[in-house]
Amino acid sequence: MRNESWQETNHELAEHHLPDLKEIIRARDRISGVAVKTPLVESPALSKRLGRSVYLKLECFQPIRVFKIRGAYNKISQVPEKNVVAVSSGNHGMAVAYCSRLLGKKSTIVLPETAVQEKVNTIVEFGGEAVKYGKYHRDREAKAREIVKETNAAFVHPFNDPAVIAGNGTCGLEMMDQLSDFDSVIVPVGGGGLISGIAMAVKLERPGVRVFGVEPEGAAKMEAAMKAGRPVDLESPRSIADGLIPSSVGDLTLEATKRYVDGLFRVSDEEILSAMKLLIREAHVFPEPSGAASAAVLLANRDVSRLGDRVVLVVSGGNVSLKLLAQILS
Amino acid sequence: MRNESWQETNHELAEHHLPDLKEIIRARDRISGVAVKTPLVESPALSKRLGRSVYLKLECFQPIRVFKIRGAYNKISQVPEKNVVAVSSGNHGMAVAYCSRLLGKKSTIVLPETAVQEKVNTIVEFGGEAVKYGKYHRDREAKAREIVKETNAAFVHPFNDPAVIAGNGTCGLEMMDQLSDFDSVIVPVGGGGLISGIAMAVKLERPGVRVFGVEPEGAAKMEAAMKAGRPVDLESPRSIADGLIPSSVGDLTLEATKRYVDGLFRVSDEEILSAMKLLIREAHVFPEPSGAASAAVLLANRDVSRLGDRVVLVVSGGNVSLKLLAQILS
Repeated sequence: MRNESWQETNHELAEHHLPDLKEIIRARDRISGVAVKTPLVESPALSKRLGRSVYLKLECFQPIRVFKIRGAYNKISQVPEKNVVAVSSGNHGMAVAYCSRLLGKKSTIVLPETAVQEKVNTIVEFGGEAVKYGKYHRDREAKAREIVKETNAAFVHPFNDPAVIAGNGTCGLEMMDQLSDFDSVIVPVGGGGLISGIAMAVKLERPGVRVFGVEPEGAAKMEAAMKAGRPVDLESPRSIADGLIPSSVGDLTLEATKRYVDGLFRVSDEEILSAMKLLIREAHVFPEPSGAASAAVLLANRDVSRLGDRVVLVVSGGNVSLKLLAQILS
Repeated sequence: MRNESWQETNHELAEHHLPDLKEIIRARDRISGVAVKTPLVESPALSKRLGRSVYLKLECFQPIRVFKIRGAYNKISQVPEKNVVAVSSGNHGMAVAYCSRLLGKKSTIVLPETAVQEKVNTIVEFGGEAVKYGKYHRDREAKAREIVKETNAAFVHPFNDPAVIAGNGTCGLEMMDQLSDFDSVIVPVGGGGLISGIAMAVKLERPGVRVFGVEPEGAAKMEAAMKAGRPVDLESPRSIADGLIPSSVGDLTLEATKRYVDGLFRVSDEEILSAMKLLIREAHVFPEPSGAASAAVLLANRDVSRLGDRVVLVVSGGNVSLKLLAQILS
């Protein structure tokens, strides 16, 4: 499994196991003042339409408009190295650049050669060095490993890292603080870092709450991993939800899902687009496709009887391309 | 001055004077858990373009996407009445409906007969009763006064109220907590409730920081009031920034501006639209026109030498109409 190589180069870091609730609580202190306690609001329009109370946890209201700041800051604030390296074509790279600058560290983000200039610009604006390299993810991982060795840097994995998972778990602590009673929560699943953190926090505090993940039909990595009992590399994961298409989950995020997650849904790109439209028109929030996947579950005529009467939808990010937004609004 | 009539019907409320810093600090405790500590982020793209450090205080990231929740909740949580009344065609009405429901109170919002159905729906969704009445603002005020008497309700003024101003001041406390050093802050001015609160909080803690207001060219009520030494009713205030066009400021907000505000800018609707475009394209936030007025000052070739090197722009709200957004993106 590809994540093991990072354990080798990062042997000085925390042990490779799931964090416990105390670590999530410590993460909350660490990231306060950087990550925002995002709003959790009922959407009366969605509640009415869906016949149950629907609450939105608006991670698209983070400073960088995506939950990733939680895990990245919790991780980077703990590494002793002055240099930080990440492989990402999107939100994770932005989060690592943003948090590194706040912490006075230098970040290098390895992106695909085909990365759009807009994303490269954002990383550079946030103070990161953008290195375009390679056609395949594995090439960029090799390149990153090289930079880690050359510059004595810390590598920040986007999801399969205890500190990243603990940081993401703070989102779960918040929703319990903000809502005294809810029956279920639906979380978009990319590599599984967000659902791992949220599920742990929620299940350890309120075992009766049900936690569900949602994946794009074209990138059901967690479902594949759950069936196989180990992370499985998908050949060519595809979805409009570009935050949900890593080729594989990690061993830690799979473990957390096995232990704490009640079920996984799949949604199509069309259903995700419909959910984006609805969130924009009815709740006036502007999610990226990945962020709208949780709402797509409710709209897509799935069997949602297990969700109960009070459902929290995690709107995980809002870095929607303006071109897509214009299409949706037209 | 029209606000005096409200003092009569609300004689049981706090005295009609500017709040002090302690009242703003108490307001912060009161609204925590309802209003969000919104992000304050540097926009590297704007900083680069404008040759100074530009920070955005993102009030458009409040649960109802506008700062109004701060003042409304602080006020409504203190009134003993079970019923609450407001006159508003926009954000204030939404805030009053939202906060009233949270506090278990019944709200009635008096709107123009011509109010678009979308706004009426939002108020109803948030649990308010929407009463369409009259052609002129003064008719609606009379209607509201009637409802106040009939239902023994508390009237919530959108800006000229000590509790509303104190609640809005929490935005100023937050920015000082979030940024150890800044030279100036620019605040959009409607009735002056937001700038009053922010200016008081900031000036009382950091007298060296300069506070500026910005008004639409077609609705420069505060400028007129400052010149006249008293609130002046504008004949027909007009602007695309529909949150900034009450016909007059209040005596309290004028007093706060006299004491604590360093200057006022004017911007045109075109300049506001350019600022909206820039904020959307460069910072990926979606302000309503009123919320973009602060950024318009920096883009509009005004003499901004007094602003210093580190400027905070208050992006006061994000309830942009989707039609306008589609136009801007196209």
